[in-house]
Amino acid sequence: MPDMTGPKIHPVILCGGAGTRLWPTSRRNQPKQFAMVIDGYSLFQHAIRMVDAEAFAAPVVVTGADQRFRVMEQMGRIERAPGVIIVEPDARNTAPAVLSAALHLHSVDSDALMLVLPSDHRIPDGEGFRAAVAAAADRAAAGDLVTFGIRPVRPETGYGYLELSDPSAMAAGVPQSLVRFVEKPDAIKAQAMVDAGRHLWNAGIFLMSVRAVIAAYGAHAPDILAAVDDAVAEARTEGGFLLLGKRGWLQATSISVDFAIMEKASNLAVMPYNGAWSDLGDWASVWRDGGPDDEGNLLVGDSLAFDCRDSMIRSEVPDQMVVGLDLDQMVVVATNDAVLVAPRTSSQRLSMVVNELRKRERAEADRGRRDHRPWGWYESVAVREGFQVKQIVVSPHQALSLQSHNHRAEHWIILSGNARITIDDGIQDIGAGGYVFIPLGAIHRLENVTDEPVVMVEVQIGNYLGEDDIIRYSDRYARVEAV
Amino acid sequence: MPDMTGPKIHPVILCGGAGTRLWPTSRRNQPKQFAMVIDGYSLFQHAIRMVDAEAFAAPVVVTGADQRFRVMEQMGRIERAPGVIIVEPDARNTAPAVLSAALHLHSVDSDALMLVLPSDHRIPDGEGFRAAVAAAADRAAAGDLVTFGIRPVRPETGYGYLELSDPSAMAAGVPQSLVRFVEKPDAIKAQAMVDAGRHLWNAGIFLMSVRAVIAAYGAHAPDILAAVDDAVAEARTEGGFLLLGKRGWLQATSISVDFAIMEKASNLAVMPYNGAWSDLGDWASVWRDGGPDDEGNLLVGDSLAFDCRDSMIRSEVPDQMVVGLDLDQMVVVATNDAVLVAPRTSSQRLSMVVNELRKRERAEADRGRRDHRPWGWYESVAVREGFQVKQIVVSPHQALSLQSHNHRAEHWIILSGNARITIDDGIQDIGAGGYVFIPLGAIHRLENVTDEPVVMVEVQIGNYLGEDDIIRYSDRYARVEAV
Repeated sequence: MPDMTGPKIHPVILCGGAGTRLWPTSRRNQPKQFAMVIDGYSLFQHAIRMVDAEAFAAPVVVTGADQRFRVMEQMGRIERAPGVIIVEPDARNTAPAVLSAALHLHSVDSDALMLVLPSDHRIPDGEGFRAAVAAAADRAAAGDLVTFGIRPVRPETGYGYLELSDPSAMAAGVPQSLVRFVEKPDAIKAQAMVDAGRHLWNAGIFLMSVRAVIAAYGAHAPDILAAVDDAVAEARTEGGFLLLGKRGWLQATSISVDFAIMEKASNLAVMPYNGAWSDLGDWASVWRDGGPDDEGNLLVGDSLAFDCRDSMIRSEVPDQMVVGLDLDQMVVVATNDAVLVAPRTSSQRLSMVVNELRKRERAEADRGRRDHRPWGWYESVAVREGFQVKQIVVSPHQALSLQSHNHRAEHWIILSGNARITIDDGIQDIGAGGYVFIPLGAIHRLENVTDEPVVMVEVQIGNYLGEDDIIRYSDRYARVEAV
Repeated sequence: MPDMTGPKIHPVILCGGAGTRLWPTSRRNQPKQFAMVIDGYSLFQHAIRMVDAEAFAAPVVVTGADQRFRVMEQMGRIERAPGVIIVEPDARNTAPAVLSAALHLHSVDSDALMLVLPSDHRIPDGEGFRAAVAAAADRAAAGDLVTFGIRPVRPETGYGYLELSDPSAMAAGVPQSLVRFVEKPDAIKAQAMVDAGRHLWNAGIFLMSVRAVIAAYGAHAPDILAAVDDAVAEARTEGGFLLLGKRGWLQATSISVDFAIMEKASNLAVMPYNGAWSDLGDWASVWRDGGPDDEGNLLVGDSLAFDCRDSMIRSEVPDQMVVGLDLDQMVVVATNDAVLVAPRTSSQRLSMVVNELRKRERAEADRGRRDHRPWGWYESVAVREGFQVKQIVVSPHQALSLQSHNHRAEHWIILSGNARITIDDGIQDIGAGGYVFIPLGAIHRLENVTDEPVVMVEVQIGNYLGEDDIIRYSDRYARVEAV
């Protein structure tokens, strides 16, 4: 464990993105930081685990309204409590998000240092990274904005670069002065930078005092400071969330912290990081980060490769195997509603595919079959003519809304736990192996009043089985008005 | 309709194969002739429809014990009654199969002509093919063994060839004399034959008098004649099937009719057929036969191609889309338990993959998730931790065995039709929307005593959900002893 002298650093985890570049694994309702699971933990959980409770203060997580319950559930699973979960009324890129965390922290401790971390990157060597953070703390405490630079291992054209004055500075192990930011280069320029050996990748990781952050916004983005200051002043606390004020927030420009602040500030320093890092920005990057085997293949889930080379085969469906034969530099990803097959070199073109799917009004573009809700999650396991099967998990002490359906009846079978079920005027408790019928039109509610999750199979029958066939009568998560 | 003078010709449909070369669509329990559906009909049904009831006698179908109910059900769906369904006690290749049909027909009409057709090939132009059959009838009636030759459209190395004496004979429209059989050639030889223009593909289609067939076996394969003669003499009729005698049948050599008879006989003729034909022998052949679009792509089911060329994308799962991006000469096939991705040129290597899966004891090698049974079919729609969902269809006036399970309870939900359900000592009739619980260990039976199919969703719950957890007490299909 690196020695962190002084007060604990406050991690600020940016958890607002969704991302289509890892479709079909990531969707709007299955953001990359939660959907991408490596070694049993989501990327978000890896980020939280990296800023361990001994060396760091409880994390500040900045996220959207849709994902706030998911953040809580994912932290709960790894037994970490958030410092606060800041909820953005709307996505506004990173500049307002970072500032909202700085203003909140400042109100608690005006001397605080904050470590800004994306929630969807991957840094395998947590200890090495924590050492780099520790080594940069003094410089940040002194008022500099310290940005972390990753030693480039290939001439990547997808990232911005940070230029240092001196190649030897890259191995120095202490923060260095920044000569300049370099925008995403072309291939020739990228190769030249890698050869010159004094450029680092800009990874969007920062260590700064909250005081310096606020001062920087005051100097370079006063309109954002005014807007976000209003949003924080008007914020209300509700169920463990800090809900930012809408009026101020919607005035804030949607812009990245790099453009708004970093590229304008003069009090910048760069902390070189020599360890492995990946933004898992596309499937090629996931393949590279995953550690391909001797044939260059990365196999995930129930997948098999016969005479394949340099390919990724990824099965996310528990009961569907994926077999590759004679593949060369291909990517195959199977989820339970969509399969993608493409050359690895086409990974960057996936946004085009997702946009095309949207144009064709294909739900698969944005909506995966597992949906996380405030009360737990459900997954549409199979849809066939005349029926749909869902698996539903209700977290302890949670409840679905009181609701009814116009077009479907439902058969509920409890797999584990104990469910409290309301149907019209009756209430009953049903345990594992039990069954309940919800007639068409009946007003019903599923509750879990116990300390264990309720796991249930729901068989819907009817001629229309869409998610929009729901009338909500009352809902502890304030969704009554939602269709 | 071609003019068929004289008595009707008896089609003999060879329906014994399973085939791994179209895995994962075809399996041991989903043979290619049933699993491969084109324009709404299986290959078997296409074969039956080609020998239409007006011009042909009722078909003789030769099949295995496993598939006999499937044959009946598939013919029923296209409203065709079999002449007879001959059931082989064991697979013995085509020589014994053809002879069993000849001996059976001879016992009914010693002057009969028989048209031997594989059940898993495809001839799109039924009328053209029937005209060729009509044109060959006199020659067959005169005692020649007429084999149909397909005009080759590429230098195929996977087929045997038939050599004619004269290129002009290929367009003559009447049977020709055969110079010789040519074994599967190498690429150079194949090209030379296509260029020379007097070779035809040997398609395994024959028109012959039953008298000539029996005489040929007497001359060239007397041991097979003796064995199959015994099997037919000892055959018994049961429920519309002619079950061949086991003792004789197991004496018959397993060999193709080409090797056993055709390559030895001197009374051969070749009927040239100029129309399209495909054996759908591998995925490359399915792609070619399917009529690729302007970009060379063949899309089947819910599949989408973005900037793909010369590729086949085939989705057989109702609720899973398959997306190809920048594919070139690839084959993608998705079924609900297995996805295959390979270059089109690797199609022939699929048997290796299936053999490897067998070695690894993967059930997916041979068993698909939809299983046809004497009483109808079921499909395992989803398997998850702790539960399995099956869709079950019981044909009119059919019943499952009286059975119980040691490790699972079952929840049954009737989607349509009317089910008669026995549980221990009670019997009840349950209609659409109804539900029944089968407790662990309960002795139960599902029957359909109506004229409409029963469609049902079964949710199995338990810690072991294998097919072998079944104790059968009585079974109208004589499967009590089966595990």
